[in-house]
Amino acid sequence: FQSIGGGWVEAQNSRGEVGLVPEDYIEVSYIVSVDVKSMEEMPADSVSLLQATNGNDPWSAWNADPSGGSTNNWASNPEGTQTGKSAPDPWPPVSHGHPQAYQGPGAEDDEWDDEWDDMKSTGGYAESEAGESGALQRGGSHATSMKISLNKFPGFSKSGPELYLLCKQLVKGKDRLPIYTGEVGPVWSYPETQLDCVVADPKKGSKMYGLKSYIEYQVTPSTTNRPVNHRYKHFDWLYERLLEKFGSAIPIPSLPDKQVTGRFEEEFIKMRMERLQGWMTRMCRHPVISSSEVFQLFVTYKDEKDWKMGKRKAEKDETVGVMVFSTMEPEAPDLDLIEVEQKCEQFSRFTKSMDDGVKEILTVGHEHWKRCTGPLPKEYQRIGKAFQNLSSVFTSSGYQGESALTDAMTAAGKTYEEIAQLVAEQPRKDLHHLMETNNEYKGLLGCFPDTIGVHKAAIDKVKEGDKLVAASKITQQDKVTMAKRASTMSYALQAEMNHFHSNRIYDYNRVMQLYLEEQVKFYETIAAKLRQAHSQFTTM
Amino acid sequence: FQSIGGGWVEAQNSRGEVGLVPEDYIEVSYIVSVDVKSMEEMPADSVSLLQATNGNDPWSAWNADPSGGSTNNWASNPEGTQTGKSAPDPWPPVSHGHPQAYQGPGAEDDEWDDEWDDMKSTGGYAESEAGESGALQRGGSHATSMKISLNKFPGFSKSGPELYLLCKQLVKGKDRLPIYTGEVGPVWSYPETQLDCVVADPKKGSKMYGLKSYIEYQVTPSTTNRPVNHRYKHFDWLYERLLEKFGSAIPIPSLPDKQVTGRFEEEFIKMRMERLQGWMTRMCRHPVISSSEVFQLFVTYKDEKDWKMGKRKAEKDETVGVMVFSTMEPEAPDLDLIEVEQKCEQFSRFTKSMDDGVKEILTVGHEHWKRCTGPLPKEYQRIGKAFQNLSSVFTSSGYQGESALTDAMTAAGKTYEEIAQLVAEQPRKDLHHLMETNNEYKGLLGCFPDTIGVHKAAIDKVKEGDKLVAASKITQQDKVTMAKRASTMSYALQAEMNHFHSNRIYDYNRVMQLYLEEQVKFYETIAAKLRQAHSQFTTM
Repeated sequence: FQSIGGGWVEAQNSRGEVGLVPEDYIEVSYIVSVDVKSMEEMPADSVSLLQATNGNDPWSAWNADPSGGSTNNWASNPEGTQTGKSAPDPWPPVSHGHPQAYQGPGAEDDEWDDEWDDMKSTGGYAESEAGESGALQRGGSHATSMKISLNKFPGFSKSGPELYLLCKQLVKGKDRLPIYTGEVGPVWSYPETQLDCVVADPKKGSKMYGLKSYIEYQVTPSTTNRPVNHRYKHFDWLYERLLEKFGSAIPIPSLPDKQVTGRFEEEFIKMRMERLQGWMTRMCRHPVISSSEVFQLFVTYKDEKDWKMGKRKAEKDETVGVMVFSTMEPEAPDLDLIEVEQKCEQFSRFTKSMDDGVKEILTVGHEHWKRCTGPLPKEYQRIGKAFQNLSSVFTSSGYQGESALTDAMTAAGKTYEEIAQLVAEQPRKDLHHLMETNNEYKGLLGCFPDTIGVHKAAIDKVKEGDKLVAASKITQQDKVTMAKRASTMSYALQAEMNHFHSNRIYDYNRVMQLYLEEQVKFYETIAAKLRQAHSQFTTM
Repeated sequence: FQSIGGGWVEAQNSRGEVGLVPEDYIEVSYIVSVDVKSMEEMPADSVSLLQATNGNDPWSAWNADPSGGSTNNWASNPEGTQTGKSAPDPWPPVSHGHPQAYQGPGAEDDEWDDEWDDMKSTGGYAESEAGESGALQRGGSHATSMKISLNKFPGFSKSGPELYLLCKQLVKGKDRLPIYTGEVGPVWSYPETQLDCVVADPKKGSKMYGLKSYIEYQVTPSTTNRPVNHRYKHFDWLYERLLEKFGSAIPIPSLPDKQVTGRFEEEFIKMRMERLQGWMTRMCRHPVISSSEVFQLFVTYKDEKDWKMGKRKAEKDETVGVMVFSTMEPEAPDLDLIEVEQKCEQFSRFTKSMDDGVKEILTVGHEHWKRCTGPLPKEYQRIGKAFQNLSSVFTSSGYQGESALTDAMTAAGKTYEEIAQLVAEQPRKDLHHLMETNNEYKGLLGCFPDTIGVHKAAIDKVKEGDKLVAASKITQQDKVTMAKRASTMSYALQAEMNHFHSNRIYDYNRVMQLYLEEQVKFYETIAAKLRQAHSQFTTM
């Protein structure tokens, strides 16, 4: 960065584009693409990804807000929203669901509200998303991009899970996250009615007298049925908050990729909206996330003031990282360490296998997509043209009584051209959903190594217990507390896995049905067209 | 060739294989692959392909047979076989059809009856026929292989069509080939019942105490229903006779390629038989060819003696080449030269266009065949495996109530593996016939430039008429005769074109119906399988 004075700097983004930027908007970030596989082989501590921020970083500025401190951030959370009435099978969930009323100090328009934010981190998303094949490659097959602020996310800090394992006081009251024992084992508390959100109606907005423009989406929650507007960067802010707060316990899937070029193109906007919808739906389905104060703020804020205040409050939340486990209260007896370790290893194995399986489907599906939109329709078109060409040669024969054949051959040729069209359009009707679902799961599964890593680190810490007591680093009571809390973490992980499984069964059942249904229609349509073409030939 | 004494020479075939061969079997041939397109641009005279033969050539030995001479070779032809009873539309034909009784001098086993003959001309067929894709390439897209003995085929000799145009005496009586005027114009005389032959039951035979082995096919004509046996080289002999005798007037399609390596393999034998069947069917359908003495000999000879005598007689036939026109008797008034020329040019244009159209279908079909048997089923197999793999990962989840999904996903995966199989097998069921028919037509169309060339040469000769009279090379009467005979040739060409057109309409109608019928079945089968797979998913 090159300061040119007057509060402006010359900046270059990851694509090498150079431009003038207000000094205040600059954040020095080190964003790293990490291979999920290699991450698993790394010690949990090093999974933490560093993001050093300078003094102008809006995040650190908020962090330094003196009004934050140790205030209980759930204070304004209306009664009942965090407490499920029952503990049924986690799917389909039943809901709580009333909008929250937010109050708090008014805040002036902050520096955050700028389109530049949409662009600043593009470097972390190396893959192009141009064209329809690019859209499928989202997330690629090797890397999950993550950025976690060291100073904002104690759960992934160097200190590791002992912050929770050894902390003195646990959260009480409204912030409790009970873990029930359902038919399938530990389960989150599910609301009676599931929250649902519609993301729709993308509109181009502008500010600074038209100098900056952006896309705004309408988000309408089923609870209030009152739409709120959000830009991509607002979703990103929400993602950051959820990752900070719940990431140690719950895999928070990344948002659809950021993109600078072509982000106002209709196709891109449509695709991004579809993916934001998918992300929102998944968040809504999660009982812990959907009932969290920050999520409720996002979907039901009343006005600008409400939103700004809620944001500041959320950013001051200190029950983040591993501390989220301090709010969890399993109703079942403590598990011993061997059981905890076995469960953790089982989940680790499963998520790794599923990650492989999902990636295989994505690879195969991507190949199939390319074939269905490239060489295959081209071939059917050539077959169609060849029939029609031969037919027009026949027409030129001068031989009488030829027209029955030539008409039928022309029709057959046109049918193959129509089939070419059908083949090329089909992937959007079926493969698209299969790919999107698997892509979502790839993203979700890419979060598990981090989440599981926190658990493994905790297990290791508990195993060190005797040594630590012997070295007088902790007391005997601390050791007992650590074991109990590792058990709580295990219940949380099991509840989360059960949530994952029930969603997975639902999602794959649905997407496979949809895929096969569309495939049946596709082949039936072709068969019908060909039957029609066949009928035009005269029987001799 | 390298004579090593004792009647043996070391010979190398076109594939570079070297071996010892009896001196007597050696024939020095110059076999040329000619591009059909460039042939059309050549003067008709130079279309003649030279095949110089040395003294050991069995063909020239027969040629030199003193008993041959100018004997009318149709002498032993029983009454009625050459005379059609009616002149309806050329398709479907009605038949004459009684087997001929052959008699004549017995002949000793000649040197011809040897498997070596099957191999000697392989050089003329440059294209490999290995594997199924090779089988489709038969005839390739550029060359038509021809071999015409200069000394046996006056029609294509340097002297050109004037041999007929200026000959003194025309054939009378039984050998007459009347040309009627049907609804579509000039037509051959069609028999009341169409001859049909079944080529079946290929059997491996051997001779010379097992040193030589060969494949013998059973040929059963519908007229006698009595099978006769023929080896490939017998078909080749028939082809040579038909080409010599009728090639100037009627395109005689080549036999399926000769092949040395792998010619005893089941797949090859099956394919060759299928193509010999196709060739025989086409010959049977032709009223002039099917009723010719040589063809009747081939399908109805009584015994070895009968066959040998008939062969010698056929080889002595002198009404060959352009002289075949001397047997033709159109019932309509003479055409003037302009009309003759217009017809000739029209047929030339049409056959060229159709040749292009047919080759396009072959090219596209070949591409499609490769895709359907190669990458496409591989892809469906991978899709199937990917579903099954994910299903087995799901099974390992330890989550209860998963089996409905995993069973359905496994079934869906297996369905895609079955689809892979269907896709790979489909071309043999439909594309195969489309390709074979077009391949046959490609062969047939490849003969037209020669046939049309003879007509063009005749037209040119007639145009020279005044000049020739002025130079006293011909008389005024000769000039009138030439014009009349060019008209006869034109009627013959028109009759042949009308035969070609009616066959073409029949063949393409049939093959398109068959193709589309199988395609419908194919897509319906897939749709049904997918519907079954779909039904296994539970509705939630």
